[in-house]
Amino acid sequence: MSRLVSLCKRRGFVYPASEIYGGLNGFWDFGPLGVQLKNNLRDAWWHDMVECPPLGPDGKPLSIVGVDTAIIQHPKAWVASGHVGGFADLMVDCRETKNRYRADHIMVEEVLVAKKSGEVKSLGLFGYVDKDDLQKKLKKFVQKSGGGDIKYHEPSNPRPYTSLSTNERSQVIGPDAENPGTLTEPRAFNLMFHSYTGVFQDEDSKVYLRPETAQGIFLEYKNVLDSNRVRPPFGIAQVGKSFRNEVTPRNFIFRTREFEQMEMEFFCAPEDGLMWYEFWVAERLRWWEEQGVKKDNLFRHIIPESELSHYSKGTSDIEYRYPFTAPEFGELEGVAYRTDYDLKQHQEHSKVNLEYIDQEQNRRYIPHVVEPASGLTRGVLVLLCEAYQYDESRASPEWLKLKPSLAPIKVGIFPLVNKDGMPEVAEKLYLDLRKDYTCQYDAKQSIGKRYARMDEAGTPFCVTVDGDTLKDQAVTIRDRDTAQQERVALANVRAYVKEKLG
Amino acid sequence: MSRLVSLCKRRGFVYPASEIYGGLNGFWDFGPLGVQLKNNLRDAWWHDMVECPPLGPDGKPLSIVGVDTAIIQHPKAWVASGHVGGFADLMVDCRETKNRYRADHIMVEEVLVAKKSGEVKSLGLFGYVDKDDLQKKLKKFVQKSGGGDIKYHEPSNPRPYTSLSTNERSQVIGPDAENPGTLTEPRAFNLMFHSYTGVFQDEDSKVYLRPETAQGIFLEYKNVLDSNRVRPPFGIAQVGKSFRNEVTPRNFIFRTREFEQMEMEFFCAPEDGLMWYEFWVAERLRWWEEQGVKKDNLFRHIIPESELSHYSKGTSDIEYRYPFTAPEFGELEGVAYRTDYDLKQHQEHSKVNLEYIDQEQNRRYIPHVVEPASGLTRGVLVLLCEAYQYDESRASPEWLKLKPSLAPIKVGIFPLVNKDGMPEVAEKLYLDLRKDYTCQYDAKQSIGKRYARMDEAGTPFCVTVDGDTLKDQAVTIRDRDTAQQERVALANVRAYVKEKLG
Repeated sequence: MSRLVSLCKRRGFVYPASEIYGGLNGFWDFGPLGVQLKNNLRDAWWHDMVECPPLGPDGKPLSIVGVDTAIIQHPKAWVASGHVGGFADLMVDCRETKNRYRADHIMVEEVLVAKKSGEVKSLGLFGYVDKDDLQKKLKKFVQKSGGGDIKYHEPSNPRPYTSLSTNERSQVIGPDAENPGTLTEPRAFNLMFHSYTGVFQDEDSKVYLRPETAQGIFLEYKNVLDSNRVRPPFGIAQVGKSFRNEVTPRNFIFRTREFEQMEMEFFCAPEDGLMWYEFWVAERLRWWEEQGVKKDNLFRHIIPESELSHYSKGTSDIEYRYPFTAPEFGELEGVAYRTDYDLKQHQEHSKVNLEYIDQEQNRRYIPHVVEPASGLTRGVLVLLCEAYQYDESRASPEWLKLKPSLAPIKVGIFPLVNKDGMPEVAEKLYLDLRKDYTCQYDAKQSIGKRYARMDEAGTPFCVTVDGDTLKDQAVTIRDRDTAQQERVALANVRAYVKEKLG
Repeated sequence: MSRLVSLCKRRGFVYPASEIYGGLNGFWDFGPLGVQLKNNLRDAWWHDMVECPPLGPDGKPLSIVGVDTAIIQHPKAWVASGHVGGFADLMVDCRETKNRYRADHIMVEEVLVAKKSGEVKSLGLFGYVDKDDLQKKLKKFVQKSGGGDIKYHEPSNPRPYTSLSTNERSQVIGPDAENPGTLTEPRAFNLMFHSYTGVFQDEDSKVYLRPETAQGIFLEYKNVLDSNRVRPPFGIAQVGKSFRNEVTPRNFIFRTREFEQMEMEFFCAPEDGLMWYEFWVAERLRWWEEQGVKKDNLFRHIIPESELSHYSKGTSDIEYRYPFTAPEFGELEGVAYRTDYDLKQHQEHSKVNLEYIDQEQNRRYIPHVVEPASGLTRGVLVLLCEAYQYDESRASPEWLKLKPSLAPIKVGIFPLVNKDGMPEVAEKLYLDLRKDYTCQYDAKQSIGKRYARMDEAGTPFCVTVDGDTLKDQAVTIRDRDTAQQERVALANVRAYVKEKLG
């Protein structure tokens, strides 16, 4: 993983945000290659969701439209959605170390020490996040409290910190602390960033940065229904930034505080909800495979009924085997059958009727919703992890095997040497091809180094104008994956690239 | 203008954000047609700036790369850029009326009244924003304080509110107030939205939502230089959301609190700055014309030297004749020659050397910067204003004459009637064309109404499958602008659309 992070920095995929000021925890910037890769993934999703959505079970194309809603919406929307009240983690602070922990991550065990004399005493209640860390810490405590005189010590009966009584909690030794009683009671910490709009800064002007794009879709559901020829089943899709004040941003661009999402809310008749839920899980798995992600690295994690949100009738996470989760998987996309929960909440809080009137069937209902919600930022990470190759036998061992249509640069164009008429021919080809395909013209360093640079960028094709080109009007095209070269007529380069990109 | 706003709502271009909750001042959402139009404008800019930038004065293609930086950056970046200290308006509140004024908008005059007896007395210090309003107000005051007995009254010696002493300010009668002493001292009101990142909410964790995308580019200038084969002159471009807590958002999506920008910073040698400034002003004017904006509706407003920022050696606004400014113009894009101000500021505050080392010329310098900074949200407004047509002689009088390649829907596809094999043929055509062009299939209502709907959406081509199609394998294609129909072979529809879109 660290090699990938370093490649990303070195080649301009992803940089830490505000790096010259020491960075800002949880924020990243996309460089020239990264923004192209991200845009390509975004456009592929938008094309396949909005402009050319899949065929439904009846063989007819689905009806899905796009929107782009504001990041800042009326604060009541977040009360209705439950985010103001519920979008919080219970956190525990340590007054001794100033560390903060998720309350549900802390386990507590009492540690008993028996002296050689037979006397047994308690060393105290030890909190820990990682059992191994507890063992290391205990060694020190045991030494301090008698060392060689100790026959045995053992922690026993692990319990969650949250299950302890207030009195017991006041005696716990924090995971990184040395003294008991320095952990606070669990306190709710809302993950939404807030700000103030307008001229006054008070509770009335408090607004939130959206923690998901989905709610903007629910807010516009009625306007879309009124202004477009759509009716259930239909979808509304959106791509955009969201913000969550994560307590522990980590794993590169996997968990960040500012990120992009690609979300679609699919509105259907209540009785069809479960059918569409299964449809979208299958469709989204298929789609990620189509972007070049190996089937073996994808996993459908069905959330057990006991862990579902109270309103959900089914949720599956589409997970990916990240380097930092392997051999296990981590979340990439969630497909949730959210029933009519969100629209009902907004109807209740806004007092606006959000029912759909089905005139053919002479009935009215609040549509049920199936939501495939994917991370775009996370999707870029998956593409990078999946594409990253290390092969000592190549001139440049590191290369990215990206699906050609998603590659930031489609064609590298080089004059073999920077003279003898070669640059002119190469430049002409560049000026023509770049109208339709992102190209990079490069005339510097050895041809091997130029290939290596393009390999690191994931560029599928490199076209070289050489000494023979002026005679035979042909160039060599090198394939990134096989490193094989083919002689292609200059006039056919465009058709060659078009065909290979599919 | 109100007709355009209403069309935008009715057809799904732009909706007020959070409308079901009564809206939120300064925030708007894009509906299905609006998001396609906005994406098309964004993609045209990105293509012409990043993927296929213009040729420079030497006939060689310019070197420009893209980035996508975080909205939230290290707060020190905004100190360095001057936004924390300077991006503020001085505001004055009125405790009597609760109105708020820009401090530099308030003028103050003392009003003297002479009675018929010859006695002269002061009516007080009157603040006003509009001189006419002051006259109206004085009439009332004069009546109250003696009416017929008054020989003359006159305000005299107008002075800016900001130039008064604190003691004098405490005696001013506010512009809409009746009593003296209700105006506050001028107070800075920063236009940046702020929030807090991490677990604590204090000055150390205070962050800002970027008021412009440009600074993110300056922050990554060094990383881009180090990780890409670029050297001055070269550009870094970015499209993304920015936020400004405008005191008075107005004119639909012209001045909003959340908006999108398309900005490019062009880095060059100091001696070339003015040349590139003129180059980019001309190029950007040309580009807006290419998007279908009439030359007559565009205006280059050269900011007079006396009004320039202290660091700028030249700024021109590219202005558009909006319906609400006509016959005058309002801002669409600014092209500013910012010298080396921004990079120098960041170098000083970050202590990171941002010089460029020119090895060929054996010198080092901080590049000068020319910035074409355009509003994307505002660009969409310009396209809509420019395209809006009202023609009573047409079936639907309102229609949008958008440049075909920017239109949200490229092709409407209709079966003339929804039977006799027509839907099958139309649907097949739709499934084929939609892979490459955004299409809308519509089988409802009369053909005239369907044309009218497409006219309102700005769709350049409508293809109708009729009773003859099964026999002659041809369809009619109706042109939006002329309303003329052409018979085209089914097999040639794709080529027809491709050619017309250019």
